[in-house]
Amino acid sequence: MFTLYYALNTCALASHIALKDAGAPYDLRRIDFRTTQQQSPDYVALNPKARVPALVTPQGILTETPAILAFIAQSYPAAQLAPLDDPFAFAEIQAFNSYLCSTVHVAHAHRMRGSRWADDPASFADMKRKVPHTTTACYDLIESHMFKGPWVMGESYSIADPYLFTLAQWLEDDGVDPARIPKVMEHRAQMMERPNVQRAIAEEHAA
Amino acid sequence: MFTLYYALNTCALASHIALKDAGAPYDLRRIDFRTTQQQSPDYVALNPKARVPALVTPQGILTETPAILAFIAQSYPAAQLAPLDDPFAFAEIQAFNSYLCSTVHVAHAHRMRGSRWADDPASFADMKRKVPHTTTACYDLIESHMFKGPWVMGESYSIADPYLFTLAQWLEDDGVDPARIPKVMEHRAQMMERPNVQRAIAEEHAA
Repeated sequence: MFTLYYALNTCALASHIALKDAGAPYDLRRIDFRTTQQQSPDYVALNPKARVPALVTPQGILTETPAILAFIAQSYPAAQLAPLDDPFAFAEIQAFNSYLCSTVHVAHAHRMRGSRWADDPASFADMKRKVPHTTTACYDLIESHMFKGPWVMGESYSIADPYLFTLAQWLEDDGVDPARIPKVMEHRAQMMERPNVQRAIAEEHAA
Repeated sequence: MFTLYYALNTCALASHIALKDAGAPYDLRRIDFRTTQQQSPDYVALNPKARVPALVTPQGILTETPAILAFIAQSYPAAQLAPLDDPFAFAEIQAFNSYLCSTVHVAHAHRMRGSRWADDPASFADMKRKVPHTTTACYDLIESHMFKGPWVMGESYSIADPYLFTLAQWLEDDGVDPARIPKVMEHRAQMMERPNVQRAIAEEHAA
């Protein structure tokens, strides 16, 4: 049994969808960012990064979405969520997910989390103004060079799909014009049709 | 045969050391950041991200350090650079490397690459002032919670070691006080003793 710590409208949704895709048994625990519960002593004792997601497993706690997704794929090989016997194909997924984590999510975070990297409100405003430019550059690259279709890695659904879907929830608010990225938008729509995605989102709001 | 595209004093060194640790055959190609060669049409055609590292393999091109490192470990199992048969232990390494990529490297990058996320020189100065605070928080967390010792993951050397070593080259310039992080500093010193590390650094300067 796993326990997934998540917050609403965060990247934790990617790990949640993957747990469902894997058929893994799990409990959900909601962390309330409005009350900065992620910084509460209880949660920091569990996850000193004070972020979500955190996945409690029988062997210990995992953080970082790319690592959690790869762990789920490797722990449930029958679910075929990654090409586990092909190091290059597996690495291509890891590279895609690493880009989402370290570049796309980071670009997005400069819209509302400027205080992570600066102190002056004028800097926050400057960062926020640039987010449409930086996130559009990210999604242009995904659309033109990285997305294979119909799924991120081509014919086979993988752990890259729930992660892209999750971050793509934010693209309009980040100022990306959906008309530029028809493949990404079609992917998002196809993902929304999947029962596991619908159930994961519903459970996160109900928990 | 692989070809590693790198630039001096960048995170590409981690992949370079891992190639040596694996005993993999490779060529080195140096990209000159001083002349912004990473944005040259030839290089962008190879790697549209216009960054390093990029690893050319017989199956295609890989980017993103955590993905390249995992690829090397999985492709050369005899080198024992990761616990390949234990999904949780493998994921712990991926989580460590993902943290280096998406949090530590990103915190560092705000010292000299502020123009990635803002436009105003005053914002760049504000970001730069905060780098000692953000990078110290990262290294404090590594020292207190993540680093097991004597290697990152404990008794076994892994692909997390060359990556931490590589980013730790920058910590004094980022304003981190080495006295706060004796385990990280001892690790860096132990890494510098390894012939593969010495050879990789020497080759990067000679290429």
